[in-house]
Amino acid sequence: MSTINSPAKQAARSSTTTERLLSAEHDMLLQSRSDPGSAYFPGASAKPGRRNFMLSSMAAAGAAAGLASNKSYGAPLGSVQREVPADPSKVQGTPLADESYGLRSQFETEVRTRFATKTPESSWTFTPLEKGCGIITPSGLHFERSHGGTATIDPSKHSLYVHGMVKQAKKFSMKDIRRFPSISRIMFLECSGNGLTEWSKPTLKTVQGTHGLTSTSEWTGVPLSTILNEVGVRPGAKWLLAEGNDAAAMTRSIPLAKAMKDCLLAYGQNGEAIRPEQGYPLRLLVPGYEGNMNIKWLRRIEISDAPFMTREETSKYTDLLPSGKAVQFSFEMEAKSVITSPSGEMQLDGPGFYEITGIAWSGRGSIKRVDVSVDGGKNWRTAALQGPVLPICHTRFRLPWQWNGKEAILQSRCVDETGYVQPTLGQLVAVRGLNGPLGSIYHLNAIQSWRVANDGKVSNVHHY
Amino acid sequence: MSTINSPAKQAARSSTTTERLLSAEHDMLLQSRSDPGSAYFPGASAKPGRRNFMLSSMAAAGAAAGLASNKSYGAPLGSVQREVPADPSKVQGTPLADESYGLRSQFETEVRTRFATKTPESSWTFTPLEKGCGIITPSGLHFERSHGGTATIDPSKHSLYVHGMVKQAKKFSMKDIRRFPSISRIMFLECSGNGLTEWSKPTLKTVQGTHGLTSTSEWTGVPLSTILNEVGVRPGAKWLLAEGNDAAAMTRSIPLAKAMKDCLLAYGQNGEAIRPEQGYPLRLLVPGYEGNMNIKWLRRIEISDAPFMTREETSKYTDLLPSGKAVQFSFEMEAKSVITSPSGEMQLDGPGFYEITGIAWSGRGSIKRVDVSVDGGKNWRTAALQGPVLPICHTRFRLPWQWNGKEAILQSRCVDETGYVQPTLGQLVAVRGLNGPLGSIYHLNAIQSWRVANDGKVSNVHHY
Repeated sequence: MSTINSPAKQAARSSTTTERLLSAEHDMLLQSRSDPGSAYFPGASAKPGRRNFMLSSMAAAGAAAGLASNKSYGAPLGSVQREVPADPSKVQGTPLADESYGLRSQFETEVRTRFATKTPESSWTFTPLEKGCGIITPSGLHFERSHGGTATIDPSKHSLYVHGMVKQAKKFSMKDIRRFPSISRIMFLECSGNGLTEWSKPTLKTVQGTHGLTSTSEWTGVPLSTILNEVGVRPGAKWLLAEGNDAAAMTRSIPLAKAMKDCLLAYGQNGEAIRPEQGYPLRLLVPGYEGNMNIKWLRRIEISDAPFMTREETSKYTDLLPSGKAVQFSFEMEAKSVITSPSGEMQLDGPGFYEITGIAWSGRGSIKRVDVSVDGGKNWRTAALQGPVLPICHTRFRLPWQWNGKEAILQSRCVDETGYVQPTLGQLVAVRGLNGPLGSIYHLNAIQSWRVANDGKVSNVHHY
Repeated sequence: MSTINSPAKQAARSSTTTERLLSAEHDMLLQSRSDPGSAYFPGASAKPGRRNFMLSSMAAAGAAAGLASNKSYGAPLGSVQREVPADPSKVQGTPLADESYGLRSQFETEVRTRFATKTPESSWTFTPLEKGCGIITPSGLHFERSHGGTATIDPSKHSLYVHGMVKQAKKFSMKDIRRFPSISRIMFLECSGNGLTEWSKPTLKTVQGTHGLTSTSEWTGVPLSTILNEVGVRPGAKWLLAEGNDAAAMTRSIPLAKAMKDCLLAYGQNGEAIRPEQGYPLRLLVPGYEGNMNIKWLRRIEISDAPFMTREETSKYTDLLPSGKAVQFSFEMEAKSVITSPSGEMQLDGPGFYEITGIAWSGRGSIKRVDVSVDGGKNWRTAALQGPVLPICHTRFRLPWQWNGKEAILQSRCVDETGYVQPTLGQLVAVRGLNGPLGSIYHLNAIQSWRVANDGKVSNVHHY
């Protein structure tokens, strides 16, 4: 009486998020791995034991005791373990407001995973995109990239100082900033290093590793133009410096025209205060520009007539070309897409129906179209785009697929509102070259290929 | 050199979320308060001590030890206390992935607050709307309304059984359901009891109390029509019963036409699995209809040719009219709006610039316009609507306001795409009457008035 027919037969799109460093080439790029307490993806494959009561408190205790700086946790933060009754409808449930700030189910275990850089303060963690749905990234799983760890800041003592080529230098407290007219915007942020291991050969196994340095939130704050008008920009000014209040005192130069156009002094993320690792209490958002320019823990803006040539735009975050010259100030994140399911390390449970889904985004505006191929780019079908389709924002795409049980190469290719078409890896490498130990480093936005083997195993491949 | 001019002078829109039961009338409605361990708004005014290290672990420990069922916490869940350096840029920050599932800043203390019902399992908690920004509600602060507490369910053992007037009854595991084509939708949910204390006189002090039973999330799942087509609905079927797997076995009748139109079997919320208190692992979403019809922990759907006349649609969730007759099946949540800032208990810091902001929503479609009055409805100005403006979704509105320091009555009034205009309280009461101890109970969508006194104190008032 209760049988399941197609398309819902014994579905099993399982995924593992455990990945390992695979080659010596990685270590060349990533420096030696002298971080003994940290697994590459700490906690990613850990399952909470039935009696492992306090998933959140264990980790919190470690942090509080100062033991956590180089320690990985056996279970993810963000849930409370509860007894599971045999029949939930035959016992009273948990009282309301038991969690006055709610956490996730104990059965949900996906986590951000850290790349094995030399120090855990200058590192990055990946969003588990294969577990995502829709376009919003849970704030607890938003990717991180920091150069000196997460700063801990009391907002009542934090201020933003704006000076340089202005009529009157001013210091703004957080209360001042929150009193100005505000706007909200659902928008992606992507690290320009997203995919840096994938230039020369397929390296990381899951989409969390290959593409997990992009996330989307609803951001709220004050247009930077409001503050710049408040101080009065002097004639001749063309650039500004944004500086963070973290251990790296992270600094980048930003064109004044961009600042006046759409930059945002953000204090809100997904309906609450911005999270500490995203720059609490104040972050500069530079819509569509590479992630590191979106200065976290923003404390200072200096107006000038020229860029400041900081470390992070000279020795880092430039793109070395085959000619030996480097492109500087490659700000915009070009159009990019990736299939998040099926994706690397998933296991298809035999022929039949599957939904192919993923995300597409562009730093230059809205996504206009996403095409999907299941034969390595010979034939393409146009995927459905989930509304709302917003500019400079993850856009969810979906395409139904009947798998015939034979090897398939899955690819997605997006087009943005400027008409730019996401390139193949071959096309991108022809322009950018492969000048480092892993090829180039930043701004890899090529088409991603996932191979589905006869046995349903999905893996990361390069397919030309 | 670093002075602040208007509009940013010494802003201080402070708010308290502590509220108290004020009148005997409340107790008549709410039953006697036999919940000794629970403050009315537990934890709402608690400030974390500097050495109160583990805000999250303390509460989790209580829950794990089984002590939490009637206990309130001294500090909110969802943050980890860290040392605050005098100069954050002079010390290393917290290592990345220290929180592999991230939490909020220790300085953010807003919480859901529970209404003092007789039992903490059949109760509701309010979203702190006055702290919100944008349209997304953080999942940890989404309002709760449950009749038997939060069910704890292992998704690998959960199933949805669909039977009744169908060609073939079927049982769907969560794996089955997740394999079907999916959609996402950013949408509000509102409890029909939102504002129930406010019919006869202004009672609760903050917008969290008066309007906090509405929240917005991005929901992901399978259209219910897909599942109904899978089982094959038989001719003559007109209704379905949806049943939860909680201690209340919550049941409601839903018109089949609505089910086929836009109902959703949701397993995703804001980019991750739906939260336990929102129905993990599966919730029925009935867009625009009163919250209790959006059955949580969904385990069974039965198709029929007539409504099922369950307890929750006969003795409860009907609207008693002055004639003595009651309206049954008042499904749609009509258009409603409220100013969230300035709002009750906030304190304006003297004359000058303030942004008036709030949210508007309608169960019948998109918000078309929001007007704001600062003189109790004599004059109105049209507010700016923050995009994206989505159907059946919170819409953020904003209006700049120069306060002259004299008493003001702030009101917002919305219009939805059907042309429906949010009524005044007088207009609504003229139709609905005041037939209970506090007036009517459900579906209060009248214009809200906030009084700004000469001294800047904001309070909840009725203004005709």
